[in-house]
Amino acid sequence: MQSKSQIDHTLEKRDENVHSDWNNDRDPALVVDSGDVIRVECREPLNDQITPESDVEDLLAVNMEHVHALTGPISVAQASPGDVLSVELLEISHEGWGWTGFFPGEAGIGLLSERFPEPELFVWELQDDTGIFKDGIEVPLAPFPGVVGLAPEANGPHTTIPPRSVGGNIDIKHLIEGATVYLPVEVEGGLLSIGDCHAAQGDGEVCSTGIEAPMDVTIRVHVHHDKEIRQPQFESTGPYTPSGEDELMYGTAGISDDLMDASKKAVWHMIEYLSEEYHLSKSEAYILCSTCVDLKINELVDEPNWVVSAYVSEGLFP
Amino acid sequence: MQSKSQIDHTLEKRDENVHSDWNNDRDPALVVDSGDVIRVECREPLNDQITPESDVEDLLAVNMEHVHALTGPISVAQASPGDVLSVELLEISHEGWGWTGFFPGEAGIGLLSERFPEPELFVWELQDDTGIFKDGIEVPLAPFPGVVGLAPEANGPHTTIPPRSVGGNIDIKHLIEGATVYLPVEVEGGLLSIGDCHAAQGDGEVCSTGIEAPMDVTIRVHVHHDKEIRQPQFESTGPYTPSGEDELMYGTAGISDDLMDASKKAVWHMIEYLSEEYHLSKSEAYILCSTCVDLKINELVDEPNWVVSAYVSEGLFP
Repeated sequence: MQSKSQIDHTLEKRDENVHSDWNNDRDPALVVDSGDVIRVECREPLNDQITPESDVEDLLAVNMEHVHALTGPISVAQASPGDVLSVELLEISHEGWGWTGFFPGEAGIGLLSERFPEPELFVWELQDDTGIFKDGIEVPLAPFPGVVGLAPEANGPHTTIPPRSVGGNIDIKHLIEGATVYLPVEVEGGLLSIGDCHAAQGDGEVCSTGIEAPMDVTIRVHVHHDKEIRQPQFESTGPYTPSGEDELMYGTAGISDDLMDASKKAVWHMIEYLSEEYHLSKSEAYILCSTCVDLKINELVDEPNWVVSAYVSEGLFP
Repeated sequence: MQSKSQIDHTLEKRDENVHSDWNNDRDPALVVDSGDVIRVECREPLNDQITPESDVEDLLAVNMEHVHALTGPISVAQASPGDVLSVELLEISHEGWGWTGFFPGEAGIGLLSERFPEPELFVWELQDDTGIFKDGIEVPLAPFPGVVGLAPEANGPHTTIPPRSVGGNIDIKHLIEGATVYLPVEVEGGLLSIGDCHAAQGDGEVCSTGIEAPMDVTIRVHVHHDKEIRQPQFESTGPYTPSGEDELMYGTAGISDDLMDASKKAVWHMIEYLSEEYHLSKSEAYILCSTCVDLKINELVDEPNWVVSAYVSEGLFP
């Protein structure tokens, strides 16, 4: 891992370097060489519309055209369609605060939006390695960019919400400091953008947000002409549990003939369990799930029913 | 955890104690009290049709009416509909061998059966904690029963293949020695049966089998009148990675607007990666995936595309 002194470029989060859609026609904010180290400043994912002082009314007033505030694009001179661009995540640092929330009812996003008609916003105090929830509940932090992606081959503007084969909003929580992600290049230069940083997130990001936060992300890029992939691949040392070791977890299974329905059941059973066992409101439990409850597919071959389980570490609770 | 000397009952794997469907009309093989410890002998999951000497022709000749060979049912005197039965897994021991395989083509089961028209069988030598694959690849063992379930409320015989709200073929790989699973009771006595033991399995059990093996499973049952659950829940210390600690993993993402399709993509990309990187045949890679590659749902809220990733430990390879 390179030290900070070897940073080749800094891409500041000024207006001209921030964009909220994918477009292969956008001029690069920066042109770099394969092997360069770049410090990328990332805004709060809603383009600084949420601040540490925000309440739920501010969340309701958000202009969704600013989603997500991405920094870039970075053109890598040697990258051409058919190549693979690797992005090493060298250093990721938050600024001491973040938020988690969800939007209401029918217009809402989130796995269980039909069960949560009212919006909710929780602003976190972030210490070095820990996010402070309520009642002594502390969530270990493992910061990562939710969006790491290249411009797609298809012309015109594209929303940043869905992930695509070139990456984007992949929300893979293991892309922390020390991890490397490989992305298939579809356009000249690749046109890499980064943002939507999360200080912590559970697999699934079930309420639609992790701990959303402004961050600085230092990366090193490499172009691979001899590698061929179809969708993102990555290498990481975890964390696979909050402590990084096998620890006591409580799991709730969701069983259904549809993986999405099985996931909804697993998360709802977890919310019921957390609210009963730890006296959280259903909304608080939903927010906690989105930041630190993991989703595994236990089996998907025993027709016609599949099993998805939600896992929570019992070590989170005092 | 109780010692072996405190076993209250042993349920041998004799014909009269083994059955291959769920039926709430079946007479109990054993009646026990809440708190009792029972040693349950489990046959090879295909009812001993596969042996250490079997080859792929034997797999093709299997009579599927014997799937799964379950030992039970055990009636717990105090259990009534609406109660919860907990099953503590006190000790699980294999007999030194197991197998992994898949069936061919259209009739086949398995996540990628359309890509694998030919059947395959691999017989494993199992040491204490390790299964021996090929080329120096060793798979850490974490034995568990794939089927732990109660008789369903619905009358008549039911196939054991799909898991149900009362449990059954849930294939949750974390139900190892030391774990506890909670099952909702639907009929008097609960009527617990156990079988389909796996010496190791990846999340998903993608080729349709883990390391299938005969085992002895010692359990303690408890009836909970004051607990209410809808589907299985469980408590476990893992393992969440092969070593039980954060370790270097390689991940392949599957991105699609359907979770099943995303899962298929993730596993296929992993098979491509393993066959290229470690010179395995596609079939060998598929078998390896089913025994030690895990599936996580990274996100399922970024409409319209979801992300499922397959994770393999790089420590498996010499």
